[in-house]
Amino acid sequence: MHIDALQYCNWSRDIFEQMRAGNVDCVHVTLSYHENFRETVLQMEAWNQRFADHGDLIMLAYSTDDIRAAKVAGKTAIIYGTQTPAPIEDDIRLLEILHRLGLRVMQLTYNNQSLLATGCYEDTDTGLTRMGREVVTEMNRLGIVVDMSHSADRSTLEAIDHSAQPVAITHANPEWWHPARRNKPDNVLKSLTDRGGMLGFSMYPHHLRNGSECTLASFCEMIAEAADRYGAANLGIGSDLCQDQPDSVVEWMRVGRWTKQIDYGEGSASAPGFPPQPLFYRDNNDFLGLAAGLAHVGFDQSEIDGIMGGNWLRFFDRVFPGHG
Amino acid sequence: MHIDALQYCNWSRDIFEQMRAGNVDCVHVTLSYHENFRETVLQMEAWNQRFADHGDLIMLAYSTDDIRAAKVAGKTAIIYGTQTPAPIEDDIRLLEILHRLGLRVMQLTYNNQSLLATGCYEDTDTGLTRMGREVVTEMNRLGIVVDMSHSADRSTLEAIDHSAQPVAITHANPEWWHPARRNKPDNVLKSLTDRGGMLGFSMYPHHLRNGSECTLASFCEMIAEAADRYGAANLGIGSDLCQDQPDSVVEWMRVGRWTKQIDYGEGSASAPGFPPQPLFYRDNNDFLGLAAGLAHVGFDQSEIDGIMGGNWLRFFDRVFPGHG
Repeated sequence: MHIDALQYCNWSRDIFEQMRAGNVDCVHVTLSYHENFRETVLQMEAWNQRFADHGDLIMLAYSTDDIRAAKVAGKTAIIYGTQTPAPIEDDIRLLEILHRLGLRVMQLTYNNQSLLATGCYEDTDTGLTRMGREVVTEMNRLGIVVDMSHSADRSTLEAIDHSAQPVAITHANPEWWHPARRNKPDNVLKSLTDRGGMLGFSMYPHHLRNGSECTLASFCEMIAEAADRYGAANLGIGSDLCQDQPDSVVEWMRVGRWTKQIDYGEGSASAPGFPPQPLFYRDNNDFLGLAAGLAHVGFDQSEIDGIMGGNWLRFFDRVFPGHG
Repeated sequence: MHIDALQYCNWSRDIFEQMRAGNVDCVHVTLSYHENFRETVLQMEAWNQRFADHGDLIMLAYSTDDIRAAKVAGKTAIIYGTQTPAPIEDDIRLLEILHRLGLRVMQLTYNNQSLLATGCYEDTDTGLTRMGREVVTEMNRLGIVVDMSHSADRSTLEAIDHSAQPVAITHANPEWWHPARRNKPDNVLKSLTDRGGMLGFSMYPHHLRNGSECTLASFCEMIAEAADRYGAANLGIGSDLCQDQPDSVVEWMRVGRWTKQIDYGEGSASAPGFPPQPLFYRDNNDFLGLAAGLAHVGFDQSEIDGIMGGNWLRFFDRVFPGHG
């Protein structure tokens, strides 16, 4: 089972064919960065059209049974997620509605303060808000993964602590390998994985040592070190692949509607756009190449199977059924 | 199987207990008269709370298998419908979203012109609009019942003609029994039932001969005459029960947001509120009493079983799976 726990591509038949060619059995896709409820539903409508047009290549997964069935059918299972709680607006009951529509992963924050918690770009971290605690409990009940990829550290630790289910950081890397606002300190990753949570390694260049020049060997050495620290069973891939997107999309991610100024986020005035992908991971065709890199740094086959997707599947098996 | 194909009560545990006491196995409930997409979702959120609070009495049905399972479990199956296409706004793709959320019945119009067709209170009947034809085809594909209860006659005939699935008038009576704006002429009912469509008999006083004074005998004589004209297999109950609603609700039904004036609809300045129910049908406890009335006018048991719900179930069996 090969799972990529984060992509936001400019979806096309070409990309879905690359998923099949790359043996990517399941992809968690982002519906929303700043989009509200109605706008997120519009994204689902666009996906319904894709499922109608490309039903030979992809299918929506509501459960891990669906993920397994997709693999048997030779299709890539699509899991819906959002990188922001904006789709639930100020209404906790929208979680159950969105869950029925397929939502299985939600970040409590994108980069800024949300109604639920604090994003990693804020100066002051409130931790989980009153609504944040309620929402985590409701996500636990329904079976929606709490994703803290873009959240600040105190908020992340409090979410891990408050959540009755293990939590995920679907796409980030350890700060000790590459210091970056979006990468995570050791204590957060320890707390996350101590409770059965998952870390998905990002291949977005701003999260990589040497950026776009990062090598597969360096990336896999990081994973080996992370396995020593956190256990190989708590690791997976969340590539953050944003293939074929125009730079207007990275601007939307950074700016949304929260400012009238340009905010460069991880970029800069001289490099405002999407950075080039590292050569070892340009698109889904390259997914299986990661397995070779993992073998090269000494992982055994069962560890490799876990990191390539088995660990995510086991995690989803635990979280998706919900409880209550 | 006992099915009531239209209720819009002020929902409470008392009413759900009356459904169980009355052996009402399935009720098609109205979510929206004028409510847009987001407002209709709010109604679904309120229903989710009811399913959580009263899960021993009611459950949401997405399929006829669910209706049958509810009966076995001793619960009343709830089917979602809207009396207006307002929830899809101007976006045909919202049908698939709402279908996933449980929508199984939708009127193409309430009383006024809609984007899809003409309501029975307009002076001029356009028939199905361009979008109306598209929406009927999409409802057929998904398995959403086309309900023409409040539509004008040409629109109704065109919907029957255009629809690949049989159509329903969930709650109205024949004009030949009681002339009223909302009751239906013989030619419409003939066309409806010739194609396998269903008529649900209303017990809303404005649709009844002698209004609130209508007797069970008179009501059942009408059904007997309708069976002679249209076949007993195409008949069912759609009580239009609006139990425990304040009069502000009937004003909302009539006025919505389309006028700043008061429109009395089927009422009048001297009687603007909900009329009292006929004595033979005050609440769900009285549902089974209809069977006795049907027996009294000469229906045999199999015909009675059909009119009390078997016909609706067979109709739903045909329409709900959709095609395509």
